[in-house]
Amino acid sequence: MSKLVPPHGSKKLKILTLNGSERKSKLKKAESLPKLMCSSREFGDVVMLGIGGFTPLDGFMNREDWQSVCDNMTMKNGLFWPIPITLSTNDKTIKEDQEVAIVYEKTNEIIATMMITEKYTIDREHECNTVYKTTDMEHPGVALVMSQGEYNLAGPIKVLSDGGFPSQYGSLYMTPSETRAYFDNKGWSTIAAFQTRNPMHRSHEYLAKIAIEICDGVMIHSTLGELKLGDIPAEVRSEAISTLIENYFVDNTVLQSGYPLDMRYAGPREALLHALFRQNYGCSHLIVGRDHAGVGDYYGPFDAHNIFDEIDDGLVTKPLKIDWTFWCNKCAGMSSMKTCPHSHEDRLLLSGSKLRHLLSENLDVPDNFSRPEVLEILRKYYSGLKDSEKVKVELKGHSAK
Amino acid sequence: MSKLVPPHGSKKLKILTLNGSERKSKLKKAESLPKLMCSSREFGDVVMLGIGGFTPLDGFMNREDWQSVCDNMTMKNGLFWPIPITLSTNDKTIKEDQEVAIVYEKTNEIIATMMITEKYTIDREHECNTVYKTTDMEHPGVALVMSQGEYNLAGPIKVLSDGGFPSQYGSLYMTPSETRAYFDNKGWSTIAAFQTRNPMHRSHEYLAKIAIEICDGVMIHSTLGELKLGDIPAEVRSEAISTLIENYFVDNTVLQSGYPLDMRYAGPREALLHALFRQNYGCSHLIVGRDHAGVGDYYGPFDAHNIFDEIDDGLVTKPLKIDWTFWCNKCAGMSSMKTCPHSHEDRLLLSGSKLRHLLSENLDVPDNFSRPEVLEILRKYYSGLKDSEKVKVELKGHSAK
Repeated sequence: MSKLVPPHGSKKLKILTLNGSERKSKLKKAESLPKLMCSSREFGDVVMLGIGGFTPLDGFMNREDWQSVCDNMTMKNGLFWPIPITLSTNDKTIKEDQEVAIVYEKTNEIIATMMITEKYTIDREHECNTVYKTTDMEHPGVALVMSQGEYNLAGPIKVLSDGGFPSQYGSLYMTPSETRAYFDNKGWSTIAAFQTRNPMHRSHEYLAKIAIEICDGVMIHSTLGELKLGDIPAEVRSEAISTLIENYFVDNTVLQSGYPLDMRYAGPREALLHALFRQNYGCSHLIVGRDHAGVGDYYGPFDAHNIFDEIDDGLVTKPLKIDWTFWCNKCAGMSSMKTCPHSHEDRLLLSGSKLRHLLSENLDVPDNFSRPEVLEILRKYYSGLKDSEKVKVELKGHSAK
Repeated sequence: MSKLVPPHGSKKLKILTLNGSERKSKLKKAESLPKLMCSSREFGDVVMLGIGGFTPLDGFMNREDWQSVCDNMTMKNGLFWPIPITLSTNDKTIKEDQEVAIVYEKTNEIIATMMITEKYTIDREHECNTVYKTTDMEHPGVALVMSQGEYNLAGPIKVLSDGGFPSQYGSLYMTPSETRAYFDNKGWSTIAAFQTRNPMHRSHEYLAKIAIEICDGVMIHSTLGELKLGDIPAEVRSEAISTLIENYFVDNTVLQSGYPLDMRYAGPREALLHALFRQNYGCSHLIVGRDHAGVGDYYGPFDAHNIFDEIDDGLVTKPLKIDWTFWCNKCAGMSSMKTCPHSHEDRLLLSGSKLRHLLSENLDVPDNFSRPEVLEILRKYYSGLKDSEKVKVELKGHSAK
């Protein structure tokens, strides 16, 4: 019997993907259905729904659920849910009770069908104010919500595509069923998820290792969704993480894996969503660092810690709340603001943009900031960038955490 | 309202100590009662009962409870309890339904009165086999049980003494009411207890800091009970721990405190007792390292981890199970067997006896084993020992962890 946390609000994963002949016939039918173009964020949501990562949802939310999620972080039926999962369109011709084919705008692939049970409009500013705590269009999550279609469409979906993740990422890409089977096979019951969209330096290694000290294992879980300019491609990140694991982690304590969602940068609310879908992946804990899933200065550094205190038993998966981590010379070790009593000058702190500068100019990175094996891979990546790309990296790479 | 874990099996602490005029009149009465001499271990148990550390017990266990605790780790009424708390005598004249005065054999002080509800004999080997997993008389806990009096006496007690701990140790000695008030005052809800009967080196600091990273705070909790030959006196330990806290811990993350019990060296069963009374002190977690409360080779290194999986919801306080910790040169940091993949030669491991040798001969201790401020205090202590005492330290000091 599995010793893992149960999926969210359900005894088993709700997998919306069709396979084999069911998929084939649905796909055939879909070709003649009205097409509904979806954005990158919606594409990630569809793929996540397909693999059961958003268990127990059976599709996109209706107006009542949208409202309740914005206002109370629960669905209308009381189930905890922190961020609306919605699909939008400007297409006035699409109607309720109609079946449509959802097509990813970037690839023109039919990825799902949906029976539209409700077509509704929302107060987008209300979503931004409640979920993102701001309506500032400079916030990348707000910009996406504000630019989304005029109508939201609700209804159950059948997913027809894996989004191309398995072929692009191979064994790095694992579904919730697969990670659960992996953990069960190891006999693990307590697993902490480490959320990342970056390579891991010693400060991140320290976070993961704290989790390993007290759990059966850690899952280093990288977003494979849409990247922003300046982000390091998943292949490079994954190679850097692999070499770190190989040289600095004990066998059978860590699983590196990826998931298909885009970042929303909703800070505290997104930390809750990160914990929710990690519960579906079988993780008992989520490592929540300083300004988790934040961007710019929109959220206080511990907002994403504190929000977990507001949700009572909404989630089985619990946060491992950890402060800002770094090497400290006086501690002669890794530390955090909570365990190092020394002063700023004793601590080795490098901004992301400073590090990118050192690496792209092939300058020395201070000892103990990162593992040499990791730096070597990053240097190779940066040295292969054209100068114009480096500039973009410099300009854009500093804003998101 | 307190956010702390509740006392064990009770909404509030069961404090058996009498104060003021109640104490005075009881003490007066006690002077004319038959005297029952108690051992150091029993003395510690009486003081612990008095301050509510053994909540919800109201005295020493009867035969049914003794049997059930040995066999099932529960009292007859189903309450979880891992080790018998019993009082023994060879005095044939003491009878049931008689009130006696409990006198500490070392000081001749009346420390409690007890109404004897049951006088019974036990199979001491059975207690050793079930609780200590051995009847080897070399085991210090077994030796104590096997040499205890012929009869066990059960009954509720009224405690008349603080055991002299407050006057001897000042603010280092805190009762469960006091630690709970301290934690409440800080607004803490998650506190890990770090059990120790030794000064703290970097490996212990690492354990405490892992706990601080994920909890509100840590309580470094030293036994102030009877010492074995070769143990470092509580005053020296406490001074060494104080200097460590002062130089390497963040304010308001750590409380150093002491408790009155003797060690039993019952390994896994004692780890459970350690967690149980830490729940009464208000701690949500107990750090359980390798071979916790073990002695010699009687227990497997993870027996004290695994036993927590057998008790279901017996305790609210949970273990933080952590492996053997050390400095590793290749990790360039503190690590454990679970987080360091490198080899024995990369790791800085010193036995207790080797360290005592280095300190008493004033030789260099390898870097990163301990903090220089801590070593300085220990050197001073060892240099003050007579040669004959050093020899004893050498001979006796290596067996217990």
